[in-house]
Amino acid sequence: MSELRLNRATKEWIIVAEERAKRPHEFHREEHKKKLPAFDPTCPFCPGNENKTPPEVFALRDKETEPNHPGWRIRVVTNKYPALDLERKINRITGEFFKRAMGVGKHEVIIESTQHNKSLATLSLKQVEEVCEIYWKRYLALKDDKRFKLIIIFRNHGISAGTSLNHPHSQLIALPLVPASIRHLLEEAMRYYDDHGSCVFCDMIHQELLHKKRIILDNKEFVVFHPFASRAPFETWVVPKKHNACFGNINQKEIRAMAWVLKEILGKLYVKLEDPDYNLMIRTAPIKDAQEDYYHWYIQILPRLSTPAGFELGSGVFINTSLPEETAKFITQ
Amino acid sequence: MSELRLNRATKEWIIVAEERAKRPHEFHREEHKKKLPAFDPTCPFCPGNENKTPPEVFALRDKETEPNHPGWRIRVVTNKYPALDLERKINRITGEFFKRAMGVGKHEVIIESTQHNKSLATLSLKQVEEVCEIYWKRYLALKDDKRFKLIIIFRNHGISAGTSLNHPHSQLIALPLVPASIRHLLEEAMRYYDDHGSCVFCDMIHQELLHKKRIILDNKEFVVFHPFASRAPFETWVVPKKHNACFGNINQKEIRAMAWVLKEILGKLYVKLEDPDYNLMIRTAPIKDAQEDYYHWYIQILPRLSTPAGFELGSGVFINTSLPEETAKFITQ
Repeated sequence: MSELRLNRATKEWIIVAEERAKRPHEFHREEHKKKLPAFDPTCPFCPGNENKTPPEVFALRDKETEPNHPGWRIRVVTNKYPALDLERKINRITGEFFKRAMGVGKHEVIIESTQHNKSLATLSLKQVEEVCEIYWKRYLALKDDKRFKLIIIFRNHGISAGTSLNHPHSQLIALPLVPASIRHLLEEAMRYYDDHGSCVFCDMIHQELLHKKRIILDNKEFVVFHPFASRAPFETWVVPKKHNACFGNINQKEIRAMAWVLKEILGKLYVKLEDPDYNLMIRTAPIKDAQEDYYHWYIQILPRLSTPAGFELGSGVFINTSLPEETAKFITQ
Repeated sequence: MSELRLNRATKEWIIVAEERAKRPHEFHREEHKKKLPAFDPTCPFCPGNENKTPPEVFALRDKETEPNHPGWRIRVVTNKYPALDLERKINRITGEFFKRAMGVGKHEVIIESTQHNKSLATLSLKQVEEVCEIYWKRYLALKDDKRFKLIIIFRNHGISAGTSLNHPHSQLIALPLVPASIRHLLEEAMRYYDDHGSCVFCDMIHQELLHKKRIILDNKEFVVFHPFASRAPFETWVVPKKHNACFGNINQKEIRAMAWVLKEILGKLYVKLEDPDYNLMIRTAPIKDAQEDYYHWYIQILPRLSTPAGFELGSGVFINTSLPEETAKFITQ
C-alpha cells in the first residue's frame, strides 16, 4: 500500500510507493565508474591549463605564484559559457506579451582541487573547509550588487547529474530576479509562520530529532536527515540548527562544521552507493529576505538514482520508490 | 549574450543561453537505438502474455475474443506496481507535523499496440485515433469519482524519459489531491485573467500566430509551437484553439484532429532527431475547474535532450541551450 506524504516546507506531496519499492542496497550502481586519472592534460581545470579558462576572479594559491598560473589550491573563474553575464544593464521589456530581460547576472565556477579525480567526498577536510569558505566569500562578494536578487550555489556530480566536466567543481549563479517557484516556496513558509508562529524548518528539525528514524547525523551546528517526504531515494537535507534565512549570514565556526558534515555525509554516500551521481544545492533566501523569521537556509543533496518522468513533470508530485526510514538506516549502518 | 524569457502562462523564467547554444542539428543522437523486434516473448505487454498484467479495465478487441486473451488492438490494465490504488478510503492524518494520506487513486496503463517496436510516431493514424479516444474515455470514466481531484495522462518514451518497458504505452494517474504546483499554475492564470480579461493560453496562441516564428503546425483545431520561453530544446506545446479548461470536454472531431496532429509532430521529431526520448503530458485543469475561463488544457512534449542539473533544481529557472525560433525552423524544414 502506498502512502502520500506532504513536505511541510516545500508543500510538495510525495508518493512513497512501497509496492514498487527497491530495498536500499539495490541502489548500488551496476556498472562501475571509469577510473579517472589524477591529471588530464586535456582538462581545462587541470593545473597548467589555466589559460583555457577565463581569468581568475579569486584563488587560494601559494605565495609568490602568479594569477592564472599553477600554484593554486582552489580557483574561481567566470564560466566560459556563462548562462548569464554582466555586459549589459537589466532591461525588462514590458508592454508586450512576450516578456524578456537581458541575461544580466554572474556565473562562476569554483575549481575545488588541482586533482582531476577528487570530489568533496575524497578531498581532505582542510580542502573541503576551504571550498566552503569560498562559497561563503563569493556569496558575500556578490550580495551587495543591486542587480542581483538571488544567488544559487550548486554542485553537479556525474553525468546523470548534468555535469559536462569531471574535474571537481561547484558553480555559482547570481540571478537578476526571484523566480516564481522560489517566491511560492517563501509564501508557503510565510503562511506556516502566520499559522504557527514558528519557522517550518526549525519545527522540522525539532520533529525529525524527536522521531529519530530518519536522522543521519546530529551535532551542535547541523542536523542531517532524509526528509519524511523525500522526493527521491536518499534525498538528504543538511539544516543548520541556528535559525537563519540566508547562507551569507553563516560564521567561520559554522563553515568549519559545514565542511565536516558535508565530507562525512558525502563520504557515506560514496561508500554505501559506490560514488553515486548527485546534485547539491545551497537553498538560501533571496538577498532582500536575508533576515526573515520564516525562511531557513539549508543544503539539499539529490542523488540521481531515478528519473523523474511524465507524471512528475505533469503534476509536480514525485514518486519515491524507497522509504526514507529505510535509506536512513542503511546509510548509517 | 543570453536572454531571460518569461513564460506568461507558467510564470517560469527561462535563460536562453546563446553562447552555450547548440545548433538544432547537433541534437541528433550519437548512438543509435537498439532495433527492437516486433514481438518480444518476455514482454508483459506483448500478445499472448495477457496473464502477466493485472486484468483488463478496458480493451478494443476483435469480436468474439475474450478479455485477457489475444485479439485486442489496445488494452487498458491497472499498473502492476501502482503508485496509487483504490484499496482504502482517503484518510488524511491531521494534527501532526508529518502529514500523510493513504495513497488512494488509480494508476492505469494504456497498451497502445500489439507490436512491441511501434510508437505514436509510427503507428497508423487509425491506431493513434483509437489511443486518443481511449485517453478521453478513461478520463470520462474516472472524472465523476469523488475521490479523484486531478487526472494526469502521460507517455514516457525511451530510457532517458524514465520508461522501464519499451512496448508502446501511455499511463493515467488519478490523484486524490491537487498538488501545490498545479494550484500555483492556476493561480497565475487566474491573475492574468483578472488583469487582462482573457485566458493567457488563448492570448499565447494568438501572439504565436502573429509572430509566426515558432509555429510548427496550425490547423482548424490546434496550434503547435515551440514556446517563446521553452524550458528545453524542442519543447513543443499542442494547444487547442477552442478555449477549454479540461481535456474531458473535448469532442469526437477534436479527438480525430488531436490524433492527426500528434502523429504528425511526433513523426517530425522521430525523423529530424532520430527517435528522441521524450515525455508527453496532457496538462488539464483539476476536475472541479473543468469550466473555468482562465485555464486552458494543452499537450506538452518535452524531448529529453538535456539534463536539468543543480541550478534548475535549486532555482526553478531552466537554461535552454537552443533558440526556439531555430528549433522550430529546423523541425519544419
